[in-house]
Amino acid sequence: MSTPILYDYWRSSASYRVRIALNLKGIAYESVAVDLLQKQHGAPDHLARNPQGFVPALQIDGHMMTQSLAIIEYLEARTPAPAMMPADAAEAARLRAIAYAIAMEIHPICNPSVVAQHAAAFDGSDADKQSWMRHFIDKGLRAVEQLADHPATGAFLHGDAPGLADCVLVPQIYNARRWGVALDAMPRLVAIDDACQALPAFATAAPEAVNSAAS
Amino acid sequence: MSTPILYDYWRSSASYRVRIALNLKGIAYESVAVDLLQKQHGAPDHLARNPQGFVPALQIDGHMMTQSLAIIEYLEARTPAPAMMPADAAEAARLRAIAYAIAMEIHPICNPSVVAQHAAAFDGSDADKQSWMRHFIDKGLRAVEQLADHPATGAFLHGDAPGLADCVLVPQIYNARRWGVALDAMPRLVAIDDACQALPAFATAAPEAVNSAAS
Repeated sequence: MSTPILYDYWRSSASYRVRIALNLKGIAYESVAVDLLQKQHGAPDHLARNPQGFVPALQIDGHMMTQSLAIIEYLEARTPAPAMMPADAAEAARLRAIAYAIAMEIHPICNPSVVAQHAAAFDGSDADKQSWMRHFIDKGLRAVEQLADHPATGAFLHGDAPGLADCVLVPQIYNARRWGVALDAMPRLVAIDDACQALPAFATAAPEAVNSAAS
Repeated sequence: MSTPILYDYWRSSASYRVRIALNLKGIAYESVAVDLLQKQHGAPDHLARNPQGFVPALQIDGHMMTQSLAIIEYLEARTPAPAMMPADAAEAARLRAIAYAIAMEIHPICNPSVVAQHAAAFDGSDADKQSWMRHFIDKGLRAVEQLADHPATGAFLHGDAPGLADCVLVPQIYNARRWGVALDAMPRLVAIDDACQALPAFATAAPEAVNSAAS
């Protein structure tokens, strides 16, 4: 099979998730940048990859795939080791629930297009946009901190190996810091983020690692 | 095992998804109402079920599960027939991507608490709230209509049997109609919704079917 091609943007959380998962699975890939600031995600060539106009899209095994969590589930089925999901169905449900609590209740609401729509309704400022993001990141991560207060939590969100939910948590913690959200109320999540950052699969997927010009 | 208990609210989209899935799988359950209008989802007994304070929560097989899509994936693993996911991993990725395009990019942004936060920033009116919801439902469903323009689409979003993505689509179409979104640009989705509504598993899960006082 040809080398997978990831159409991504260095600072996109959803792209960051997939970079981590590809690294954890040891799947080599090529990266093609879709520059969101230059609106390349709205250009016809990218809309042909993903009608939603979002990054990432992954060309793999003859398919063009979209939606970061659907891609990660595919990678898990395609390349089972190392496992990113527990074998037990109930444990997998808990892990997915944590991933979704971030990927559904925080991330989409803080998507730049949503934040822009919010501020446009009242000619809001950059401070209004930051206030919006801080509110939902703080509220969402507080709930995730409680979900992580569970016997199945280990060094990572499930046990002592990184999995699906960790791929989602780390980019969200990155965003929380970027937008100035205090993380004092989420010590479990900060410790798990630290454990992830110590792994090359996470470190080499980080925005500043893939865009050396930004660091 | 004891009968599963679904803590739900008749008009919650996420609850509606899980009711459909339980019906499709033929899993009998008891329903306990969590009245969102009376703020019962923020009460300590419900927060003990789900720290996020959302419905639904499902007590099943000795576990309290949250997040509708995590619950549906669990039901698929627990009760494999009838299948709600394709066996082929790439086809499953396409189906999940469609489900997530609704469950991530439309539904959370139109959650009542998000809409309220939006309007509160500028003392917005009910019309402002409706405008917000219509914008994101219209934009999101137009993209999903394009995702459904695919050889794998049949009478349902994948082939000729209802699956994960149909459980997510039908409640979103219900909401689109509730909030006055024109569906003329989404003929494929309307046809699939019609096909679903003709099935008892969907019809008996509908908000007005489970809350006879509302019809």
